[in-house]
Amino acid sequence: MIYLDNSATTKPYKEVVDSFVKVSSTYYGNPSSLHKFGVQAENLLTYAREQVSSLLQVQFNEVIFTSGGTEGNNLAIKGAALQHQGRGKHIVTTTIEHDSVHEPFKQLEQLGFSVTYVPVNENGFVEVADIEKAITNETILVSLIHVNNEVGAVQPVKEVGMLVKNYPKVIYHVDHVQGLGKVPLNIKDAHIDLCTISGHKIHGLKGTGVLYIRDGVTLFPLVSGGSQELQKRSGTENVAGIVSFAKALRLTVQNQAEHIKKMERIKEKLINRLVQHERIVMNTARMNTAPHIINITIRGMKAEVLVHSLEEKDIFVSTTSACSSKTKKPSKTLMAMGRSMSDANEAIRISLSHLNNEDELEIIVSALFETIDELKKVMR
Amino acid sequence: MIYLDNSATTKPYKEVVDSFVKVSSTYYGNPSSLHKFGVQAENLLTYAREQVSSLLQVQFNEVIFTSGGTEGNNLAIKGAALQHQGRGKHIVTTTIEHDSVHEPFKQLEQLGFSVTYVPVNENGFVEVADIEKAITNETILVSLIHVNNEVGAVQPVKEVGMLVKNYPKVIYHVDHVQGLGKVPLNIKDAHIDLCTISGHKIHGLKGTGVLYIRDGVTLFPLVSGGSQELQKRSGTENVAGIVSFAKALRLTVQNQAEHIKKMERIKEKLINRLVQHERIVMNTARMNTAPHIINITIRGMKAEVLVHSLEEKDIFVSTTSACSSKTKKPSKTLMAMGRSMSDANEAIRISLSHLNNEDELEIIVSALFETIDELKKVMR
Ligand SMILES: Cc1ncc(COP(=O)(O)O)c(C=O)c1O
Ligand SMILES: Cc1ncc(COP(=O)(O)O)c(C=O)c1O
Repeated sequence: MIYLDNSATTKPYKEVVDSFVKVSSTYYGNPSSLHKFGVQAENLLTYAREQVSSLLQVQFNEVIFTSGGTEGNNLAIKGAALQHQGRGKHIVTTTIEHDSVHEPFKQLEQLGFSVTYVPVNENGFVEVADIEKAITNETILVSLIHVNNEVGAVQPVKEVGMLVKNYPKVIYHVDHVQGLGKVPLNIKDAHIDLCTISGHKIHGLKGTGVLYIRDGVTLFPLVSGGSQELQKRSGTENVAGIVSFAKALRLTVQNQAEHIKKMERIKEKLINRLVQHERIVMNTARMNTAPHIINITIRGMKAEVLVHSLEEKDIFVSTTSACSSKTKKPSKTLMAMGRSMSDANEAIRISLSHLNNEDELEIIVSALFETIDELKKVMR
Repeated sequence: MIYLDNSATTKPYKEVVDSFVKVSSTYYGNPSSLHKFGVQAENLLTYAREQVSSLLQVQFNEVIFTSGGTEGNNLAIKGAALQHQGRGKHIVTTTIEHDSVHEPFKQLEQLGFSVTYVPVNENGFVEVADIEKAITNETILVSLIHVNNEVGAVQPVKEVGMLVKNYPKVIYHVDHVQGLGKVPLNIKDAHIDLCTISGHKIHGLKGTGVLYIRDGVTLFPLVSGGSQELQKRSGTENVAGIVSFAKALRLTVQNQAEHIKKMERIKEKLINRLVQHERIVMNTARMNTAPHIINITIRGMKAEVLVHSLEEKDIFVSTTSACSSKTKKPSKTLMAMGRSMSDANEAIRISLSHLNNEDELEIIVSALFETIDELKKVMR
């Protein structure tokens, strides 16, 4: 199998699964229990939070463990908006966010907030000046994706951070789910208040993630109760998941430089081969895009048909973002970039991880070109 | 080790951990991906939902997988209240709920809802008539715990269901987290609209759970995004956790009758021995209480000191509910039952599982009695 759907999810590291098993079988105490079997579990939690905060270069009390990127985005956005609505009810985001950002904004509209959706240019990049124009006296939140999950466009997260810090009323949230391990980001340097990451996109386990909440930023908890996670996210902690997340993050950060280089090399070579085909149009810009995402339109070929033809050859790619793929709506990001409906419907995403290898390149290219030829014949 | 803190959390079944490992290592695809590696994961999800719905005797589309009991309670309560606030802004619960119910009600008060907290009698039972009195024209939600987590009192969940079904505007939520596998409950017979269960209380994994949402009941999603879980709880599904939950539920339901009998036998014998001690006062009623919880006050002995003395003998019990144990507040349930502050501060909870055995009985009793004697000497 050649797995090229790493933006949808990744294969967990063996060490990650092993640590999950070890903790859930041996240290299954409740970290809130007073006895030493509980304290053991609590110590594991503390150690994981120390590791994660040091790897992210943030403070210990700024790391909140969640069940994943979607929960993190929801807690950041609805938590900030509901908590601070007294200061104003205007919030800002872009037209190329993941559904787990877009939908919370839609829900807040229902609750009486007004939203500005800042557009992107034809390459999928938002302009800092457009964010600036969107901010008003009533604005309390700006939410921006770091690396777009469909085309890989890297947004000017730091520049927007520099801008937003001039507006003390505005909380700045970044969806870093596709960026982590792919495009380095220093959370503090970028003046981010809230930053979402997800375990299963970095070879960790599904059901794990972190929301960075800058010290001093208050949120309306979506999940309240026993005051776990510094009262920001209650519920008996998934200790095994949390420990496994710390492990995945460590392996990711430690090997980041090398893995990025490897993915970049493959991406570069793959693009150079793909553009030779007359039917293929690149949707991912040449500059300022993540090392793991290549989005192409294959003119005249429905993306879904291509995905299924390639899977016959044991190659796995995707149409658009995984969670939108079943709604059969055209790619939101490509539409926002001004592509035609048919270009958006004929787009596939190839997404790499460090587990891919250069020797897969020719297999991928031949399989794709062959598939296109076969489909051309069928369609004639 | 003699583990008597099963209301806080339980040891996962080996089969549960094994299935988690199998799924996360081999079937790590994203269930939303169109290709067959995604479809494999989706099939596992479908199969787990089928199993769970059949074990709970509810419909396939009424099972929503969550990250645990706290999330389930929050989604049920805030989801129902926010969605249906147009119909009225009065909601009802009791004074002996778990924090993951109590806190969402407090948050809803902040958002302008009015709440009636129905009291309990001296044995910890709510009266159906008191719930009836609480319901007004403005009431849209009644939330009731099935088995209280501190003293084990079984609430008249079915009788309240029969009552509430006469009020078509009222949604009925039951927190079944401590009841599942201990006190059989037929969700449909009890006319429940929303029912919370948690994996780690039934020898499943932390970070897993289910919210039953009756077909036709709509909620304001707390976690929105990619429309997973029938649009009621978005986020890439924790497929391995979900499969492991289905396994834990199957093992629980299959062995329920036998396990309940075993726990009841141990509970009965333990109580008969404990009441012989002059300092021990029973807080758990003799009738209508769950088979796994024994709450006692040991007069003149701080609960925390007892917990630590017992842990020296490798016996693990708890003060109050796990998540409240660190706040050092007196037990909420005992206070609601009208016990004195000192009785509430001197209460310990012994909570069993089917993994306990009758031959542990004498060890437990001697250890406890010895500890009391030692502490008496120290305190003199
Ligand atoms: C950019 C982005 N944000 C958020 C998410 C949601 O994260 P999760 O799958 O952990 O819920 C995803 C992936 O699904 C994503 O690609
Ligand atoms: C009665 C009750 N409800 C809800 C919960 C919360 O469940 P979880 O620990 O899965 O978040 C618990 C246990 O903590 C409980 O005992």
